[in-house]
Amino acid sequence: MVLLEKTIKKIGGLDYKLMEKTQERLNNLTKPKASLGRLEEVAKLIVGITRNENPVLKNKVIFTMSGDHGVTEEGISAYPKEVTPQMVYNFLRGGAGINVLARHVGARVVVVDMGVACDLKPHKDLVIKKVNYGTKNMVKGPAMSKDEAIKSIEAGIEVFEEEAKLDIDIVGTGDMGIGNTTASSAIASVVTGKSAEEVTGRGTGIDDKTLSKKQEVIKKAINLNKPEAKDAIDVLSKVGGFEIGGLSGIILAASSKRVPIVIDGFISGAAALIAYQLCPKIKDYLIASHQSQEKGHKIILDFLGVNPLLDLNLRLGEGTGAALAMSIIEASVKILTEMATFQSAGVSEKKDK
Amino acid sequence: MVLLEKTIKKIGGLDYKLMEKTQERLNNLTKPKASLGRLEEVAKLIVGITRNENPVLKNKVIFTMSGDHGVTEEGISAYPKEVTPQMVYNFLRGGAGINVLARHVGARVVVVDMGVACDLKPHKDLVIKKVNYGTKNMVKGPAMSKDEAIKSIEAGIEVFEEEAKLDIDIVGTGDMGIGNTTASSAIASVVTGKSAEEVTGRGTGIDDKTLSKKQEVIKKAINLNKPEAKDAIDVLSKVGGFEIGGLSGIILAASSKRVPIVIDGFISGAAALIAYQLCPKIKDYLIASHQSQEKGHKIILDFLGVNPLLDLNLRLGEGTGAALAMSIIEASVKILTEMATFQSAGVSEKKDK
Repeated sequence: MVLLEKTIKKIGGLDYKLMEKTQERLNNLTKPKASLGRLEEVAKLIVGITRNENPVLKNKVIFTMSGDHGVTEEGISAYPKEVTPQMVYNFLRGGAGINVLARHVGARVVVVDMGVACDLKPHKDLVIKKVNYGTKNMVKGPAMSKDEAIKSIEAGIEVFEEEAKLDIDIVGTGDMGIGNTTASSAIASVVTGKSAEEVTGRGTGIDDKTLSKKQEVIKKAINLNKPEAKDAIDVLSKVGGFEIGGLSGIILAASSKRVPIVIDGFISGAAALIAYQLCPKIKDYLIASHQSQEKGHKIILDFLGVNPLLDLNLRLGEGTGAALAMSIIEASVKILTEMATFQSAGVSEKKDK
Repeated sequence: MVLLEKTIKKIGGLDYKLMEKTQERLNNLTKPKASLGRLEEVAKLIVGITRNENPVLKNKVIFTMSGDHGVTEEGISAYPKEVTPQMVYNFLRGGAGINVLARHVGARVVVVDMGVACDLKPHKDLVIKKVNYGTKNMVKGPAMSKDEAIKSIEAGIEVFEEEAKLDIDIVGTGDMGIGNTTASSAIASVVTGKSAEEVTGRGTGIDDKTLSKKQEVIKKAINLNKPEAKDAIDVLSKVGGFEIGGLSGIILAASSKRVPIVIDGFISGAAALIAYQLCPKIKDYLIASHQSQEKGHKIILDFLGVNPLLDLNLRLGEGTGAALAMSIIEASVKILTEMATFQSAGVSEKKDK
């Protein structure tokens, strides 16, 4: 708990004064005022987060955290749970969606075992922070102990801090874990107060019958465990997952270090809810990469008050949406730092100015 | 007219057989079926356009075409018309929005004078295809002669063909020209049959009073010149612009060479309407980069039946939206060509498969 508390204590606010100055600078670039829309908003936010008037987003890191879920024994997933470790190996070989997109935008992927249900073969690019061999079935009791919940968040903080030694300018969150849309839906339902039906979608592609079962399972888990919405550790321990806790840790650690955080889809959104309940100030550090096709994602983003950059019908996770958005975010910063001003380019200004 | 007719004759259809094969291939990649949403759609389209199962989008070219508009003497623009040549020089010095974003995505910008109202200083990176020194005021008669309309389209075809000698894998359209949202609104109104009020927006940022005047000017020009919606040359000559004609030429030429075309915002949309009226098959070659903030843009995209990739509140033009979208399009192709399959990665498939 010491590391978690210390990290939260270090989280400050945005630099609004520098953001105002940046707005003036944006207004002087050779383009009609505000004509680059959300790029300008994002550039200003990055300045406010980093307290750097000329930010450079060179070192991009996506943390793809994996964990298994005991609730899969209820038959709520389209894929068998062996897929979790199989996909971790796919990440390490560079063949997954996140690898392709991260390479495309020049980001490195840090693959973390937060709680896969088997021992993974050691690999130079695999960070092992296993809290346990998958969570317990939340329909029968809490998914994990409170100690494990704290341990998973603190492991995320440690992973970030270790990686930050190599420099991080911007961070993306990503996940892998068969069953983790079920845990994330449960977290979303508890924290936002919406019903299981409203926040629960088809995950990797389940049919109507399995969707009903999944919603029943979530309601049952919430009724049995009675997680306390305001107590994030309680929510995470009762209906969460190790990779979700780990991503909450990444979000808290990055906020404490003034590093902009690009959140991916539904699972990352659930992790952001946990981090937000622990420290609402993290909201200022979040950039929502995209609007996922997973039904509850919009509810999470609305609750956090963040507006996604992309809407490409994605629902893969792994950090794929975060990777795509990183390129747009980097572009926005380059607009700020590389464009000519009306004065420097000798371009006439607006008539009524 | 010979070059235009020859170009149109060469425009064929998509390779639907190869697209079906590509769909199967996408379904076998290590991700839930269709979970990369629009990236998968785009990858399939690029295969259908290029007839290449493993397309590579290395050579990206954005054509930023400039021209002046006689209608500016009606006082319908927020900026004085000197800004057109000033911005061309800004493009050539690399300080404009399009330069920054094109560099970011690895595209080259081809700057073309299609009809700027003054003689521009020669520059190694400036292509001079000046049809005339700006169009005439369309409130007093046709903006240009029919010969000039054809000449502007054919000049666009020539510019594309010249540049294609250096290889082009994907092309983006861009524009610069004070007054060109007025011409584009007129084209949109005539071709789509919507009223001037419905298709006319604030351009670079005019106030309510100027907006009303702009709408009146458009109605007056249409009533006076009576352009025939089905006759694209007639529409272009009466209410168009030289850079718009040039971009129509780029679209036709790229379609004839099976090169995917990323259309930028409102002006590029008007150019696509002209090209579409000349040859509806060009529609298959278009990827709409973004939904512009300019009001009539949605009407144009709906008329063409294309769905924009991005929605970032942009309204700058120059090709900026096209540049941003090119990075997403390149990512989609890499998904197809670089991701592992379930078989190659040893990942279990869906239970009910």
